[in-house]
Amino acid sequence: MRIDMEASVSVAVTHLVDGVAAILEGAGVVHEDAHSVASALVTADQEGISSHGVMLVPMYVERLLAGSVSGVAQCEIVSDRDTAVVVDAHQCLGQVSSAFAIDLAATRARRFGISSVAVRNGFHFGTGSRWAGALAQQGLVGIAMSNTRPLMPAPGGAQAVVGNNPLAIAVPSEDGTPLVLDMAMSASAMGKIRLAEARGESIPADWATDEHGAPTTVPAAAIRGMLLPAAGPKGFGLAVMIDLLCGGLASGGVGDAVRPLYGDAANPYGCSHFFLAIDISHFLPLAEFRATVGALSSRIRTSRRAPGVQRLFMPGDISARQAQLNEDVVTLPAKILDQLDRSAQVVGVSFSL
Amino acid sequence: MRIDMEASVSVAVTHLVDGVAAILEGAGVVHEDAHSVASALVTADQEGISSHGVMLVPMYVERLLAGSVSGVAQCEIVSDRDTAVVVDAHQCLGQVSSAFAIDLAATRARRFGISSVAVRNGFHFGTGSRWAGALAQQGLVGIAMSNTRPLMPAPGGAQAVVGNNPLAIAVPSEDGTPLVLDMAMSASAMGKIRLAEARGESIPADWATDEHGAPTTVPAAAIRGMLLPAAGPKGFGLAVMIDLLCGGLASGGVGDAVRPLYGDAANPYGCSHFFLAIDISHFLPLAEFRATVGALSSRIRTSRRAPGVQRLFMPGDISARQAQLNEDVVTLPAKILDQLDRSAQVVGVSFSL
Repeated sequence: MRIDMEASVSVAVTHLVDGVAAILEGAGVVHEDAHSVASALVTADQEGISSHGVMLVPMYVERLLAGSVSGVAQCEIVSDRDTAVVVDAHQCLGQVSSAFAIDLAATRARRFGISSVAVRNGFHFGTGSRWAGALAQQGLVGIAMSNTRPLMPAPGGAQAVVGNNPLAIAVPSEDGTPLVLDMAMSASAMGKIRLAEARGESIPADWATDEHGAPTTVPAAAIRGMLLPAAGPKGFGLAVMIDLLCGGLASGGVGDAVRPLYGDAANPYGCSHFFLAIDISHFLPLAEFRATVGALSSRIRTSRRAPGVQRLFMPGDISARQAQLNEDVVTLPAKILDQLDRSAQVVGVSFSL
Repeated sequence: MRIDMEASVSVAVTHLVDGVAAILEGAGVVHEDAHSVASALVTADQEGISSHGVMLVPMYVERLLAGSVSGVAQCEIVSDRDTAVVVDAHQCLGQVSSAFAIDLAATRARRFGISSVAVRNGFHFGTGSRWAGALAQQGLVGIAMSNTRPLMPAPGGAQAVVGNNPLAIAVPSEDGTPLVLDMAMSASAMGKIRLAEARGESIPADWATDEHGAPTTVPAAAIRGMLLPAAGPKGFGLAVMIDLLCGGLASGGVGDAVRPLYGDAANPYGCSHFFLAIDISHFLPLAEFRATVGALSSRIRTSRRAPGVQRLFMPGDISARQAQLNEDVVTLPAKILDQLDRSAQVVGVSFSL
């Protein structure tokens, strides 16, 4: 562990996974699950997606202790019709129910061609790219979505009515690293707006509205207001459809039936997920598909660049590159490590990296 | 028929469908197909989506006569694995192959839960909303996508590498009119940029680049340049994934293997389509899903509005409303009717509305 001048700390990945797993286990999560959830969170930090990394642990722990998330609940298949399966996650950790769901989706896709699993009573599943990507690693097209509590108004609206519902799509590539698209339906994230506020910068006019629904470039007004959908009616429309595919097909919550993640820790989050798996080999030999992906990827990565642009990226390239750079060590703000330390104390485990 | 001051003409829908069908039949399209394609095109005009309406007929006719589109080819199922079907459209009209594909997708979804049909050697399928919506009318979730020739660069790129590949998603609603999202992956359409040029207006900086990949607000530079993806890497990433789901799974063309629609009329367009159907009743009773859609829709439509906003819309509301207004009569630019008249002359049929 090395503390540098910007108050950030470099930590060995294996130590961080073990430490986070110990905290989660201390909060009542069964041993194997604690380790796999810790690993998923640390991977997000390695990929440079710190909003979905170990900074979430204190909130997870608070909810585990308050009982709105269960460290022991088992996923239950409540409806099983070949390629259409509904799972009740019983408020277990989202990484646990998602691993369960994609295993099921992969098995059914191999048998029938394509398959889907809808999950209700779910919790934050980390990065969607992890689940879509895991399916792509197995030679399938993987699609993962989740609904969130309402954060965005309809175009012209002044009330948050739909989440920024993430969508991840992954396909196998030629070189083994899947192409992975992982996007939320908001133009930007509240985290970036808070960052702009901290830096005293203004924000683009299409990121957020004030509390009355008027677009604003003032971060403080945006924080009191609402996120705007990416590309207006397009991001809004996709968010609505994802809400219905997740909560609608799972008979789970849609709209404001999904509660704030950082709200009352005793009140279940209540999100739903929807996973699709497509077994490519039911359409064509997998190697041919991989070759198509490889050819398109290389054509795009080597296409003409605008002046001053050094490099062009396919979906997932940037996080894959980050993950490589951070293969053994991740650097985290010292503040996050302090918070992990406090969570460790609360659950009575020792946390030293 | 009435010619008004803005050189636009009001035409009875039934007459227009019959006239367009006669032209298509004159260009070699079998009788029933000519009528169904004409009906699909006129519906787009009724919905206010004139870019996908009868203005396409002269290009369709030119391609039919040049042989790159076939008015008689039959769709062929080239691979059939339960929920994963590949169809070769043999360059028939896209509306014909899409009707074939969604019938197949619906049948398989009812049997297995969900299903998919990938179509290669396809042609322009009109509005994606027609096919997704037709599935939703049958109580299914309908998803329709197509790839197009490259129109957009990667973020930071200066070369068109991916199409603005449309995606349509439709779900059944409580009142019988499905919710339908239909979006292209570009921030805007070349048609709108041409309109801005004609009006001497500038365009938003995120719509297009000049020929060197630099964002531009000058319509003339944008016309020589490239469309930008909606929401940058998000629209770009979705466009890439749609390209691979369509052309990749169908063993059809991806990237620049799809040719310009208005290019060499003798050279097949070569696009691919991908359709997904989800039988909701395999997850939960359809009536319950409809009720969820109805409740969310009404909550959103009646949510608080920003100052000056009269009404909030769910996906598909605007085109459904237009279609109602234009139920019996559509108004078209006189220029379009002139072009139809010329197409009629070319194929030797009389065209009077």
